[in-house]
Amino acid sequence: MARVVKTQVEFEGRFYDEYVVIEGEDLPAWRADEKFSIVGQSQTRIDGVERVTGAAKFTHDIQLPGMLYGKILRSPHPHARIKSIDTKRAERLPGVRAVLHYQNAPKIPWRMGLTLLFDQTLRYAGDEVACVIADDEEICEDALDLIEVNYEVLPFVLDPVKALEPGAPKVHDSGNLFQGAPEIYERGEIEKGFAEADVIVEGTFRTQVALHNCMETHGSVATWEGESLTIWDSTQHIFGVRDTVAQALKLPKHKVRVRKQYMGGGFGSKNSAGKYAVMAALAAKMTGRPVRVVLDRHEENLAAGNRPSSIQTLKVGAKRDGALTAIYHKSIVNLGAYTAWGGGTTGPTRRLYVCPHIKTEDVCVFTNLGPFSAFRAPGYVEGTFALESMIDELAQKLNLDSLELRLRNYAEIDPATGWPYTTKGLRQAYHRGATLIDWQKRTALKEKDSTDTKKIGFGMASQIWGGSGGPPAYALVKINPDGTAVVITGTQDIGTGTKTALAQVAAETLHFPISLVKVELGDTQLGVYSPLSAGSMTLASVGPAVRVAAEDARKQLMDVASQTLEMPLDELEIDRGEFLNTRTRERIAIKTIFEKLQNFMIIGRGARGPNPEKKSVNTFGAQFAQVEVDTETGRVSVQKIVAVHESGRVINPLAISSQLEGGIIQGLGFALTEQRIVDERFGLVLNGNLEMYKVPTAQDVPEIITEMIDMPDPEVNNLGVKGVGEPPIIPTAGAIANAVADALGRRICELPLTPDRILKALESQ
Amino acid sequence: MARVVKTQVEFEGRFYDEYVVIEGEDLPAWRADEKFSIVGQSQTRIDGVERVTGAAKFTHDIQLPGMLYGKILRSPHPHARIKSIDTKRAERLPGVRAVLHYQNAPKIPWRMGLTLLFDQTLRYAGDEVACVIADDEEICEDALDLIEVNYEVLPFVLDPVKALEPGAPKVHDSGNLFQGAPEIYERGEIEKGFAEADVIVEGTFRTQVALHNCMETHGSVATWEGESLTIWDSTQHIFGVRDTVAQALKLPKHKVRVRKQYMGGGFGSKNSAGKYAVMAALAAKMTGRPVRVVLDRHEENLAAGNRPSSIQTLKVGAKRDGALTAIYHKSIVNLGAYTAWGGGTTGPTRRLYVCPHIKTEDVCVFTNLGPFSAFRAPGYVEGTFALESMIDELAQKLNLDSLELRLRNYAEIDPATGWPYTTKGLRQAYHRGATLIDWQKRTALKEKDSTDTKKIGFGMASQIWGGSGGPPAYALVKINPDGTAVVITGTQDIGTGTKTALAQVAAETLHFPISLVKVELGDTQLGVYSPLSAGSMTLASVGPAVRVAAEDARKQLMDVASQTLEMPLDELEIDRGEFLNTRTRERIAIKTIFEKLQNFMIIGRGARGPNPEKKSVNTFGAQFAQVEVDTETGRVSVQKIVAVHESGRVINPLAISSQLEGGIIQGLGFALTEQRIVDERFGLVLNGNLEMYKVPTAQDVPEIITEMIDMPDPEVNNLGVKGVGEPPIIPTAGAIANAVADALGRRICELPLTPDRILKALESQ
Repeated sequence: MARVVKTQVEFEGRFYDEYVVIEGEDLPAWRADEKFSIVGQSQTRIDGVERVTGAAKFTHDIQLPGMLYGKILRSPHPHARIKSIDTKRAERLPGVRAVLHYQNAPKIPWRMGLTLLFDQTLRYAGDEVACVIADDEEICEDALDLIEVNYEVLPFVLDPVKALEPGAPKVHDSGNLFQGAPEIYERGEIEKGFAEADVIVEGTFRTQVALHNCMETHGSVATWEGESLTIWDSTQHIFGVRDTVAQALKLPKHKVRVRKQYMGGGFGSKNSAGKYAVMAALAAKMTGRPVRVVLDRHEENLAAGNRPSSIQTLKVGAKRDGALTAIYHKSIVNLGAYTAWGGGTTGPTRRLYVCPHIKTEDVCVFTNLGPFSAFRAPGYVEGTFALESMIDELAQKLNLDSLELRLRNYAEIDPATGWPYTTKGLRQAYHRGATLIDWQKRTALKEKDSTDTKKIGFGMASQIWGGSGGPPAYALVKINPDGTAVVITGTQDIGTGTKTALAQVAAETLHFPISLVKVELGDTQLGVYSPLSAGSMTLASVGPAVRVAAEDARKQLMDVASQTLEMPLDELEIDRGEFLNTRTRERIAIKTIFEKLQNFMIIGRGARGPNPEKKSVNTFGAQFAQVEVDTETGRVSVQKIVAVHESGRVINPLAISSQLEGGIIQGLGFALTEQRIVDERFGLVLNGNLEMYKVPTAQDVPEIITEMIDMPDPEVNNLGVKGVGEPPIIPTAGAIANAVADALGRRICELPLTPDRILKALESQ
Repeated sequence: MARVVKTQVEFEGRFYDEYVVIEGEDLPAWRADEKFSIVGQSQTRIDGVERVTGAAKFTHDIQLPGMLYGKILRSPHPHARIKSIDTKRAERLPGVRAVLHYQNAPKIPWRMGLTLLFDQTLRYAGDEVACVIADDEEICEDALDLIEVNYEVLPFVLDPVKALEPGAPKVHDSGNLFQGAPEIYERGEIEKGFAEADVIVEGTFRTQVALHNCMETHGSVATWEGESLTIWDSTQHIFGVRDTVAQALKLPKHKVRVRKQYMGGGFGSKNSAGKYAVMAALAAKMTGRPVRVVLDRHEENLAAGNRPSSIQTLKVGAKRDGALTAIYHKSIVNLGAYTAWGGGTTGPTRRLYVCPHIKTEDVCVFTNLGPFSAFRAPGYVEGTFALESMIDELAQKLNLDSLELRLRNYAEIDPATGWPYTTKGLRQAYHRGATLIDWQKRTALKEKDSTDTKKIGFGMASQIWGGSGGPPAYALVKINPDGTAVVITGTQDIGTGTKTALAQVAAETLHFPISLVKVELGDTQLGVYSPLSAGSMTLASVGPAVRVAAEDARKQLMDVASQTLEMPLDELEIDRGEFLNTRTRERIAIKTIFEKLQNFMIIGRGARGPNPEKKSVNTFGAQFAQVEVDTETGRVSVQKIVAVHESGRVINPLAISSQLEGGIIQGLGFALTEQRIVDERFGLVLNGNLEMYKVPTAQDVPEIITEMIDMPDPEVNNLGVKGVGEPPIIPTAGAIANAVADALGRRICELPLTPDRILKALESQ
């Protein structure tokens, strides 16, 4: 019987009730003491050869016969209204097939109804004005220059504080404050908490706008077959794109197919459908030909979203023994012109430590800048930097080891909900990390290695995040007569190794070697529903469904073997891809039993079960940084990062270490080099490219030591896994900032920690 | 529990035991008195718009980036051995990427091991010698001319009678007689039967080689992604191609994906993988690029198989009242150089009439001509022509109405097995057909309309065939939250309307309008196993699995609705795509209940149940022809064909009428115009093209009246359907030949009934 189940799903540190449909029975969680031969073993990517040889087809690689190209004309003004548009010259250019704009395209609401697919009002320099479709991209570019737009230039605002002042230019008619009010959270009585404090520390922290810069830019290829639409999309959610495009074009869902096999990164910026997807679909319908609309690097950096800048004020009170009494945290977040949700940064403050009195305030503000989108642990990277900086300040003031201070405020149960955690390995992570970095000897190490101009420092920060995953997620596992298996889901591998981890789960469950398992994903029409690959929830959502489907298939295979071999089920096992008679120890190859069973297929089906009730499912970690700051050049050189995290059971240690390293490197860029630079006079982005926007390169990467606390979660799902995608980026900037403060003896409260900021801070010393 | 079930599957009039795996429960058959709103209604093709607008992508339309083309060098000799091959000049031609031949390709056994993919011995003019891969087909053609082959020309034999003589050239080392012996069947005592006869008629009948001439020629496109191979193939059995290619290239089945969406006809010639598929796969591996190998019309007609010619001797004995006492039927079949199975023609003789003493003898002979392949009701078209001609001769000799003679020998139970039929509507077909053609008034009509030089004649013939279908066949039915459904199978629509009929079954079962159902097929990797689309078994195999899957999905949808709407299940129905409260008569749109259930998927799963035991499942029909023969020109003009058939339940009357018309037109070509012509001196086909090989055109098509005896079969499967693809071609030539004999007062025993044969027969009169 199909059951409608209400379950709690955590996303971005909030809990949502969701109603899901589950068919079939879930399985009990794999126990902590179970022995596995594939799960828990390092497994190279099962599609690694395809990836490194160029055989893997990314959305950018899709070439269809007769395919046309689209390029988007973007607003040169941060705020303007189109008075008129003349596309005649562009349309006359040979090779131009269509020009879409606000006068000839359907009025499709976009970004929570804040704008339209083609809006007459443009709210940032980069907002979409028109889309040219032509035989190649060069003709498109030429045609863009021939479109004549008469703009009414409007006053604009870039600064979120100014945007809230009376009389400021209105980005949206509904006002510049997101949802009309700050988002406020309180527990206990904040004033009482500060009154009880023996010491109070305060600070204001600023974080910059960071750009995702996925290696593969955003884009889509659309083609119609009659009334049916197929879109190849570089997306983190093929079903989400299906639903958004279906709604935009008023199509039923069974006539929209979204596909994606390989993707060059998303980091949250590809959580939902882009305008390019709908433009490609509309243009393909108009022209009767496939259409490819792919953003270039500059467009990507203008229009595909960003981690918004923040101004965060923190005030922390504590007893002399270090026990926190009160935290106040206000954050002003610059959303830019559009958003999908609020994007506050105060989450970690509410959840990381035991503290009876807390008030947080997120003020999310629209300005005439490129739009917000989720970026790997949105809000938590910024908030953790501020909170963990403040905790270090408090430790200094209390003359306490900062790790000791954290341990004294360790939350044994979730301080926000009062619920127990399913597992929490943060204490182990603290201790193991401290050992690996030699935390107790850091003072001696500093003294030994520092010189007059090269200052060594050590710092740490901790991390809390979600990653429970949850239903709805479905899977199928098919077994062929030669004893090979195909896993089918509708999830996507956004570069993280989903395909490999799902193959491990299926192979372990089937008792097959992994070479006999292939994973097919990324197709809404032939696959089965799987959620968004974000919130670190892919494996924890889809993996348990794969296990149920594989177990269903395994049982059927055993039934078939028992009947075919005429052996009782209880004497039969599958072991390393062979049948094993447990009584006689005889081994029989799977395919041999199918000599008279040539043409059949076993089809196993599985669904992810509900999340545990009134339990907090969180991931935890601690990172430790050792830095050297050159006081002459202001250059920060990170010498070592130690990262120890807990995310439930470890399925693939190799993939997890890659994820940890990737997150840490991205956090390093956020700490030291990455920032979007805007010319304040014109509202124009000056460094929307990979030359001037400084992503860390191989040369910038320090020694990174990663470890996982492998702690199978008995309750979160039948695999015991939690997510691992976002946690490692969360504490990196905080740990580095604390190390730099340790090295210099003073704190710089604004990221990134560029040489100019270091030198300026040293000058003012 | 998955069950291994032994079931009888009928194919080509023989019964085979097959072991199949079935998971889940089957459903009771739809009753004859059930009312349906979609099933039984004429439904235009659900993919009709795609087909007529050119949006439908056939294998010929597949274009992949960087794709290369392959063309095959074929033997110019009917029998030869390659002494040496020199491809250097061809390889030096700019644009040539590879040349495959017996010296550099793996030795892959082909056609039951009778030859290799590239064999050094060539057994017919057209046998594969080499395959050139180049940037386009023109370069391939030029390169073919540059390959230097030194052939040792061998003696050859084309005539099957001569091929059996001692000292005849050996086509295969194992001898020219297929399986070393004729295939002999006997029941009763044949000599006793003839001794009991009051009258005996005898005759020898010859049928020609017919070529399938599918509108889309055979071909494949192959591409690799790492170790995984994808083949688009114009095939009647995607899973069969998967398995053959996997075996040929020693690949596991989960690494081979075969796809096919649309196909321009197969008629049996695409039942199994072609050499072109393996060549394309090998060449794609060698070159690292996609490769397309598609036969041209001439190659198609040399190498893709044919309906073999036959020489059939019949002797029929009967009592004076018409009761058959004995039939002897010997058939010599010219298989050409290769075959998949024997291809005898005597099946109808064993099964159509009650007769106590029968002996049949099929002598299948290899010669140095193009290979046999199944062609729409293989053997039965030829055998029915001979048998039904003989029955008419007998009727004449007994001075009985030929319909009356058939009714006197009507089989109430299967005369070959003694089993009852599940349904048999032949008697109704006889009566209804006779009414529609005005059979009783034919003598008057002949007299009225004949002139000195234009002779009118009437004739009839009947038909028996299989078409039970059977397991294994699986299906999935997914329901999206907007109340649309997707049917997934691994079957193929070979042009017959499978997609539409399966949509009707799913829509009827779900109680959805058909517009809410989409059918996805033709993908081995993401679809589920379905059998060969041949033997008239697709709908009868896959349809019942779709019904089970749809019912599973419908039940889950009802569960979900009952819980979501808080209504008891027994008050809830689905009616025309909406929920209906049977108590309050309230109607609720399906998608409205999913407002809080945005992201889920219902997945229904189904398998085809076993066939009934010890029952004969057959299809039946009768056709009546009215012809006018011009005794001056020898031209036969068919004026009218009446066809009445019984194939169980009628799902889509419109599609069935198309199938009947198509079969009849193909039968008309076989009767009157189609024949492969070979130059006996050189063993070369002279008319392997559509100009000289005379397929009927629109101008040749007479008035065709079709009707079905709609007789839901209570036992064959849960839909009550039997196949309809092959039956209509079976009796057409016999009915026309009988009508021509009736018109002329003498019988021509050799097909096709060309003007020269008519005139020759009239001359000798």
